Amino acid sequence: MTFLTYPRHIQEYLEKKGINIGDKVRITKDKVEYTGILMPRIELGDVNCLVVKLENGYNIGIKFDKNVRIKLLKKGKPIEFKPSKIKLKMDLTKPTVSILGTGGTLASRVEYKTGAVFPTFSPADLLISFPKLKEIANIKGRKLFDLFSEDITPEHWKIIAREAAKEIKVGNDGIVLMHGTDTLHYTSAALSFMLQNLPIPVVLVGAQRSSDRGSSDNEMNLLSAVITAANSNLAEVCVCMHGSESDDFCYVHSGVRVRKMHTSRRDTFRSINVLPFAKVWYLEKRIEYLRDDFRKRGKRKLKLDLKINPNVGLIYFHPGMKPELIETLGKFYDGIVIAATGLGHVSVNPTNDRFAKSLLPALKSLIDSGIPVVIVPQTLYGRINLNVYLTGRLLSQVGVIGHGCDWLPEVALVKLMFVLGHTTDMKKIREMMLTNMVGEISERSESIHFLV
Amino acid sequence: MTFLTYPRHIQEYLEKKGINIGDKVRITKDKVEYTGILMPRIELGDVNCLVVKLENGYNIGIKFDKNVRIKLLKKGKPIEFKPSKIKLKMDLTKPTVSILGTGGTLASRVEYKTGAVFPTFSPADLLISFPKLKEIANIKGRKLFDLFSEDITPEHWKIIAREAAKEIKVGNDGIVLMHGTDTLHYTSAALSFMLQNLPIPVVLVGAQRSSDRGSSDNEMNLLSAVITAANSNLAEVCVCMHGSESDDFCYVHSGVRVRKMHTSRRDTFRSINVLPFAKVWYLEKRIEYLRDDFRKRGKRKLKLDLKINPNVGLIYFHPGMKPELIETLGKFYDGIVIAATGLGHVSVNPTNDRFAKSLLPALKSLIDSGIPVVIVPQTLYGRINLNVYLTGRLLSQVGVIGHGCDWLPEVALVKLMFVLGHTTDMKKIREMMLTNMVGEISERSESIHFLV
Repeated sequence: MTFLTYPRHIQEYLEKKGINIGDKVRITKDKVEYTGILMPRIELGDVNCLVVKLENGYNIGIKFDKNVRIKLLKKGKPIEFKPSKIKLKMDLTKPTVSILGTGGTLASRVEYKTGAVFPTFSPADLLISFPKLKEIANIKGRKLFDLFSEDITPEHWKIIAREAAKEIKVGNDGIVLMHGTDTLHYTSAALSFMLQNLPIPVVLVGAQRSSDRGSSDNEMNLLSAVITAANSNLAEVCVCMHGSESDDFCYVHSGVRVRKMHTSRRDTFRSINVLPFAKVWYLEKRIEYLRDDFRKRGKRKLKLDLKINPNVGLIYFHPGMKPELIETLGKFYDGIVIAATGLGHVSVNPTNDRFAKSLLPALKSLIDSGIPVVIVPQTLYGRINLNVYLTGRLLSQVGVIGHGCDWLPEVALVKLMFVLGHTTDMKKIREMMLTNMVGEISERSESIHFLV
Repeated sequence: MTFLTYPRHIQEYLEKKGINIGDKVRITKDKVEYTGILMPRIELGDVNCLVVKLENGYNIGIKFDKNVRIKLLKKGKPIEFKPSKIKLKMDLTKPTVSILGTGGTLASRVEYKTGAVFPTFSPADLLISFPKLKEIANIKGRKLFDLFSEDITPEHWKIIAREAAKEIKVGNDGIVLMHGTDTLHYTSAALSFMLQNLPIPVVLVGAQRSSDRGSSDNEMNLLSAVITAANSNLAEVCVCMHGSESDDFCYVHSGVRVRKMHTSRRDTFRSINVLPFAKVWYLEKRIEYLRDDFRKRGKRKLKLDLKINPNVGLIYFHPGMKPELIETLGKFYDGIVIAATGLGHVSVNPTNDRFAKSLLPALKSLIDSGIPVVIVPQTLYGRINLNVYLTGRLLSQVGVIGHGCDWLPEVALVKLMFVLGHTTDMKKIREMMLTNMVGEISERSESIHFLV
């Protein structure tokens, strides 16, 4: 079955009744009857909603619960989304891009006869949905899984990295990874550390608005990502997303310097503390580089490094935080990232104020017991500096890690997971954390990039 | 003693030896001898560093530890910072502003003879440091405490609110609160909820660079804050800080819509999702209003409401977060704020993926046990919307609070503390949280204010 399936308990109920998708049914709920064709579930809807195409042509969703009764009226022709069988001819003058799907709203195809929304992961399907792709490259594609991005875990990062590595090794010119936007920047950071010595671009892309909305950004984002994968000189893990409120260009961001900054805007992804790598003017298929400090496309052997320890927590310091929280987290985690205030501060109460509760003893005991504590800026923008104020110096003395780093909370979190996959030696952890591996720390802050 | 004192153990050591600040001493440490005048400790330095003015005129800091030996060489004249005794004449044609100090780098005065840095909290001292103040208003002032802002707790918020209320009740035209910048926006949020029915402006102000630096922002920020307190029509708790990279204007932000966004820049404070209330062109003493939707200065009776339950935690959802963390925090806190991804999502794993770990059962059991869970956007910008995706709807079903809110994580945290000080009834908590009290939630998002 290529369309989205209902959850197991609904499937089992339907099978017991001998009902298939495509059958004509009568659904009764709360004394109301609905008669129509049972449809596949819709992509972004409640998985527990049965979708029925009524005789007037409208699709409605009926929440499946114990009050629902379904009666088979007439077996129908099975509704099936037939992946297009068109044999794609390779155009040898064009680069080849492999598109991997992990879920998210980007690539879905509406089957117009029924209104059913199908994920489109065969290369031919992608080309039917986005015919302009073939002007850019030969397209290959497959689906790894179909998840909301907030359900993607460090285990999925490993699967994605492994599958991307396969696609790199068979000689594609670029990889595009379709991903939900919520945690796209966590995945891009993980891939940046896992896919070492990249020879070609690996481009993550998502969409903020689904394809059934007029303002959908999916085509422009996907085309721009494929242009980047096919033609750019960026042998980096990067994120390609809408650049402005207009449909004019996408930004290509470093996978370790980017963050989702708005819940709903299309231009939500922003490079923090650095410029994006490039702009892609997708109509002209033109890449305008904004920086030159990136690894260039070239012949080199990819190194895949999947060692990661996901047992790391990220906490947010705030007034009133209890030192006991730190102690408790020490029992939970092998490493802790603290989003600290200002230049990297938490309460250490050097003036012995009667209300303030110093976190210093708890942090010291954590670090002494071998659990690294990494400091990141709650401000997001700017650099940690533990030398300016007494608070920072006291934190340095007990061994927190982060002085001099202009990293993002999410990236430092993923990096600490990666580092703890490689060593438990505190000296080595510190050294690896403070070493710029893939551009996640800059030597020099460029103030002009604040909030732009 | 008006200058900054050494910690108690050092004071006791000095008293035992009969040594006072101002005495000529010989300090021996690690076989090195330092001879000079013992100075007051410096404001931003390590409190455990003895400061000695050497005979060559330089001040040096010597870390006090068990290897330090101090010998009194000669009793000196006590170094004393004499608060200026100038009797300030009230100018009855000018408004009167009361300045309260809580610490931070803003108001310090260097005593040029010795180089000692003194906090300046008498009105006369403030006028000596910032003589332009008297062109704006009659200045009153006192110090509440002298803390790094990261040590300020909800208990301090209550003290500040109570003291501000006193100053309001005696009929001042405006209140200025000097505060360290790190957690200034948490305090401004707390005061916004505690000082109800404000008749006059309450303006928080800080400085990013201390007065001994050429690029110090302290004078411009303080003058702008006093202009706002004295002359503006804003009967609101607001934050007045540098507006741009130049020394041209300050922004006046709503105390519940502002956030420190850069570790070191002077224009670090930014209004999120709304425009600032106003710009203050401090050289011309001109206030340019950018909005009109604020409470106007007027005769009304302040209501002080100090009921707050600080036992609230703020956590940051990320890939790999363990549901057990939520369970553990439930034992710790009376309320939890979750910085969620995208429109307000955490992993709820509706597709039963084998790796994803749903937080839903843990959240449900927390909420069912009477602990409210409030959702805020990790993106900072934009609005929580739990109706778009299945994830959000499932979260809504178990009773998380936040749908429709464009609030900041820090503000929702402080608001939840405040609300839990008033009720433990979940229905009432939800109602209070979702009601816009002091401008912390807007009805309409103004997209044009993204990252500007």
